[in-house]
Amino acid sequence: MAYKSPIEDTQFILENLLPPHNKLDNSTIYAVLEEAGKLADNFLAPLNHFGDKNNPILRQDHEVETPKGFSNAFSEIAKGGWIGVASDANYEGMGLPLRMGAAINEYWHGANMSFSLCSLLTQGLIDAFTLIGTEEEKKLYLPKFNSGIWTGTMNLTENQSGTDLATIRTKAEYDGKNWRIRGQKIYITYGEHDMSENIIHLVLARAEGAPEGIKGISTFIVPKFLKNKDGKYTKRNDLKCVSIEHKMGIKASPTAVMLYGEEEGAIGYMLGEEGRGIEYMFIMMNRARFDVGLQGMAISEAARQKALEYANMRIQGTPINREKGTPIIGHGDIKRLLLSMRSLTEAMRALILVSSEIMERSHNGDTNASLQEAFLIPIIKGWSTELAQEITSNGVQIHGGMGFIEETGAAQYMRDARILPIYEGTNAIQANDFMFRKTLRDNGEAAKLFLTQMNLDCNDNPQITKMIKLTSSTLDYILNNRDDQELLSCICFDYLMGFGYLVGGWLMHKAKIKANIKLSNNPKNEIFLKSKIVSADFYNLHILPRISTHLEIVKNGANIVKLTKDSYI
Amino acid sequence: MAYKSPIEDTQFILENLLPPHNKLDNSTIYAVLEEAGKLADNFLAPLNHFGDKNNPILRQDHEVETPKGFSNAFSEIAKGGWIGVASDANYEGMGLPLRMGAAINEYWHGANMSFSLCSLLTQGLIDAFTLIGTEEEKKLYLPKFNSGIWTGTMNLTENQSGTDLATIRTKAEYDGKNWRIRGQKIYITYGEHDMSENIIHLVLARAEGAPEGIKGISTFIVPKFLKNKDGKYTKRNDLKCVSIEHKMGIKASPTAVMLYGEEEGAIGYMLGEEGRGIEYMFIMMNRARFDVGLQGMAISEAARQKALEYANMRIQGTPINREKGTPIIGHGDIKRLLLSMRSLTEAMRALILVSSEIMERSHNGDTNASLQEAFLIPIIKGWSTELAQEITSNGVQIHGGMGFIEETGAAQYMRDARILPIYEGTNAIQANDFMFRKTLRDNGEAAKLFLTQMNLDCNDNPQITKMIKLTSSTLDYILNNRDDQELLSCICFDYLMGFGYLVGGWLMHKAKIKANIKLSNNPKNEIFLKSKIVSADFYNLHILPRISTHLEIVKNGANIVKLTKDSYI
Repeated sequence: MAYKSPIEDTQFILENLLPPHNKLDNSTIYAVLEEAGKLADNFLAPLNHFGDKNNPILRQDHEVETPKGFSNAFSEIAKGGWIGVASDANYEGMGLPLRMGAAINEYWHGANMSFSLCSLLTQGLIDAFTLIGTEEEKKLYLPKFNSGIWTGTMNLTENQSGTDLATIRTKAEYDGKNWRIRGQKIYITYGEHDMSENIIHLVLARAEGAPEGIKGISTFIVPKFLKNKDGKYTKRNDLKCVSIEHKMGIKASPTAVMLYGEEEGAIGYMLGEEGRGIEYMFIMMNRARFDVGLQGMAISEAARQKALEYANMRIQGTPINREKGTPIIGHGDIKRLLLSMRSLTEAMRALILVSSEIMERSHNGDTNASLQEAFLIPIIKGWSTELAQEITSNGVQIHGGMGFIEETGAAQYMRDARILPIYEGTNAIQANDFMFRKTLRDNGEAAKLFLTQMNLDCNDNPQITKMIKLTSSTLDYILNNRDDQELLSCICFDYLMGFGYLVGGWLMHKAKIKANIKLSNNPKNEIFLKSKIVSADFYNLHILPRISTHLEIVKNGANIVKLTKDSYI
Repeated sequence: MAYKSPIEDTQFILENLLPPHNKLDNSTIYAVLEEAGKLADNFLAPLNHFGDKNNPILRQDHEVETPKGFSNAFSEIAKGGWIGVASDANYEGMGLPLRMGAAINEYWHGANMSFSLCSLLTQGLIDAFTLIGTEEEKKLYLPKFNSGIWTGTMNLTENQSGTDLATIRTKAEYDGKNWRIRGQKIYITYGEHDMSENIIHLVLARAEGAPEGIKGISTFIVPKFLKNKDGKYTKRNDLKCVSIEHKMGIKASPTAVMLYGEEEGAIGYMLGEEGRGIEYMFIMMNRARFDVGLQGMAISEAARQKALEYANMRIQGTPINREKGTPIIGHGDIKRLLLSMRSLTEAMRALILVSSEIMERSHNGDTNASLQEAFLIPIIKGWSTELAQEITSNGVQIHGGMGFIEETGAAQYMRDARILPIYEGTNAIQANDFMFRKTLRDNGEAAKLFLTQMNLDCNDNPQITKMIKLTSSTLDYILNNRDDQELLSCICFDYLMGFGYLVGGWLMHKAKIKANIKLSNNPKNEIFLKSKIVSADFYNLHILPRISTHLEIVKNGANIVKLTKDSYI
């Protein structure tokens, strides 16, 4: 039942759906994927179920013990340089393009999502310091993060401040020498753990005298250990983990309640400029949301592999037109489930890797690419994490009664996946973002550019072109109703899902064209290529029809909004 | 955050969508519902989360301790006569019509599904003995079951025999005086517990010398305690619980692995005739599947109530066109989630209660009603339990980060609900049954009768009539392809779901008509009635469009089946 990093599909997408990268040839790609895949398969995957059963422990001294083996595995990943895989080589990063970081991050999360959250967050801090840090800060922090000697956390949420960060109450006072942080933060992933020498908390807080609301919030660097007189980071800062949550999933990852400044105030250093905390967060948000979408794809792949293996092994009832003793993969409904799991997962992978290349260009200052990135991010986060719910649940279903038994492991994927539509902005937030910021703000321009491109690429696919037309007219409906924000807020989720399925269909169609070309040259991977075509055809016939429902709902918006009086809900 | 039995809606449906019952007036209905609702709300609901956290314990002596309070609560239910609520008064049942049993069973399961599985299974045995038992058996067992002094279990599954019971290996040998049962059974709900004086296991086993396959299987009554010389049931039979499962949900209910006949062989008594075990099981199956669909509806209601309460309380971000401090129920996407949860739950409740009346007639020998019942059962089981996944997951979503924290309780509903599409025949089995037995066997007659009736009832609803037309043409497609079973097995799930949504829409439309009539008479429950109309309208605009997708997939069947070669999955 072992997880296997899906190198073949990653390679296919990188080589066929992305423009080549001038620093990457195919043999480098393969070597990197294979090396990372081995680590994921051999070091992380075997700890996945163990960590779910043996959760982190908060000790009396407020230190957290992670599940046995986690610390060693983290060292392996860190030693290989994988945390800084797409990070600047000037600060000891590996310096590979973002696409490789994305490709490899799938494997970590597919193998063990709870474990991999620690490096994911640390990568978030690498991004933050790269973008906002001073040269001095970069020199101090980036090599530590890239090597995994230090790790990082994001401290945003407070009890009263989830989606709405304007209400943050954590305070920062300047004592003439240092900022002193006081407050409580919740849902801090890997807020405390034993896998690194130091933990650097990025904390959103309100500086003394700062205005109310969003503009008063700044970002502070608050290390667990401060520099001592001997130059070593051994001086305990005034912060501690006061409890860890009992969660539905990702149980192996400690989710901490962090208390800052119970005594003399936790020492913090302002990152960037005062009052720009939320702005910085939004800069980093694209990457964070991209990563969550990627997690959805990764865990879907893991759930699919497990279900496929079981379906090939379990014998129960003789499938129609088949011999006695044929495993359940021969049953029509099991085929339906497995094919939908695969075609959706491959579509997500294509979307995420194609987007990673767009993000590379965006980071290099290509404004067109930035617009595309901004448009795709809510789809990546929202659509992929919704699909992850369906796919991991189908994984349970294929196992029958066994799926409900925790020892099997299928249920864990479903429980783990359940956080994805929630964190880094609930999918309602994604849908709002997609509707109001990404579609209306530019008057539908980005949406139209995608529709035009899809139309060009899919002119030989009548099902997709029909759906493109439907989406275009739905977009017109939305633009015509742009002033009725209440209406649009009731239908934005279905608009996002409809567009997501269309983007997935487009990329699967492109993949099919490439697979057909490759097939004509007597390739070695004939089964893979034929399976890719099956995935694309299945997507066409079985997944694309979902778009009609979502877009019909959008077009019913004006009547739906009339029903949404609170007292009748 | 307390569960409240939804008496108002039950009443509305019983009074307005079902033909009256000559032994039931509205005041009796209300009195019974209120009495049961109180017990559910006050005795069962408070134990629900506690049982999830404090699971049953298997002791060294093979006895199982249920969570603290379960045994007392069971006595309360039993004392009130609620286990035998719809059971024959000649054997100490309460003798109420099935509709009342169904209405009340919702409350038990909504309040505490894990707990209520014990009485559910006991009711299954009441059905079995009523249908198949000798007069002597009825006199012995029925009063014990009706009063909850004894409880019952169903022992079907073995490791190699889940869906396919033909492969059962448990053996029964006749020693000249008694049957001796030997074998291992798994997934035995409440196979061992401390809530009743005796546990009566109904065990499917193969009598010595019986033929291979289904025809060799008989049903045996295997009590935990046998009659002793003093006439008391204190003599331990040779059976024991050897382990209990660690499950994703319904954790408070012990799911036992049962070992029969490790020593001298467990003494069993054949129920009914030899070789008819599977046939009997199928007779009882309708009721069991109906009950599982009912559980899906009940837990959806519970999840909805919890989410609604949170949405009315949590303040986060200011909703569009609303004042600061408006709770999240003001947000468009929260409204979408809550309204879809309610309209779907109400549609399920209508389906289940309307069907319970059809089952009453069927049990009284009305062959038309029997055909209708047979047609509806896979929809009730399959469609309702799929919806329960969506609704309980949406319940988590509305809670945001809190939803993922186990203490909140929203996650438990989702975990508990996950068993429903699996047990009593996976939904693949329901879909197969719906396609092959319920649609094709009578050449689409039952399906057509429903479509005709819906057309009559909904002629003033253009959205529904459009969907009826679509379903009719889909039925034609299915009938035209009746010989291609492989094709039909790939699309039967979508056919079931499409038909299910249509049935739900039909009943909501009927409810709306009745609510409108009531509204014209200055009723006291104006908000309830207006909410019912909102539910129906929302269903029309937001739920009905799903049918198009499901039926489009069905019509793509001929092309989909071509993709289902095992090697490309």
